[in-house]
Amino acid sequence: MTQQYHAKIYVTLRPSVLDPAGTAVRSGLSHLGYDNVEQIRIGKYIELTLSADTPQAAETQLDRMCDQLLANTVIENYRFELTAVSDVPVTTGAA
Amino acid sequence: MTQQYHAKIYVTLRPSVLDPAGTAVRSGLSHLGYDNVEQIRIGKYIELTLSADTPQAAETQLDRMCDQLLANTVIENYRFELTAVSDVPVTTGAA
Repeated sequence: MTQQYHAKIYVTLRPSVLDPAGTAVRSGLSHLGYDNVEQIRIGKYIELTLSADTPQAAETQLDRMCDQLLANTVIENYRFELTAVSDVPVTTGAA
Repeated sequence: MTQQYHAKIYVTLRPSVLDPAGTAVRSGLSHLGYDNVEQIRIGKYIELTLSADTPQAAETQLDRMCDQLLANTVIENYRFELTAVSDVPVTTGAA
C-alpha cells in the first residue's frame, strides 16, 4: 500500500574539504563581535515528501536520489531521517 | 566557567515564500525518473562550536547571531539544537 513519507536530508561537506563559505561567515560573525565562534561549517538541509510502498523502498530511493543529484559524494556526506506521514519515525540512513 | 557548545542550526524558507531551487531540484529528480517526490524545500544546515559561560548565554548569543547574520528572518525561519561538548543535550530554540 502506497504511503507518504517525509524526509529530512542533511548534506554536509566532508571534513577534509575546505569550507570557504563557513570561513566567510565566521569572519562576518567576528566583525559583529562574536569572536568566540569556531569551526563553522555550512551545509544543506532538504525537506521533501515522497510516496512509496514500504519504508525500505523509500529509504532505497532516497539513497539513490542523494547519490545522483542531492549530494556531490566526492566532497559531501549526507544523512537522512525518514518519517511516515502519520509521524512515526521509520528509519535513518547515511553515507 | 567557560564551556564549549556545539550548535546545529536549521535555516528554512518560510512556508509562504516560493522556493525556486526546490522546484528546480524536483524537476531534476523527475527527469531522473523519481516522479513520486513532492514538496521539496531547500534550506541551510549550519554546524558551529562556540564557548560560553552558561547554556543560556550560548542560546542567547545563537539567537542574536541567527537574527543578525545567519538567517534572513524576513523570508526564513531558523531553529537550533545546542549541545555541551560533553555531548549532553542542553536546549533547543527557534524563531
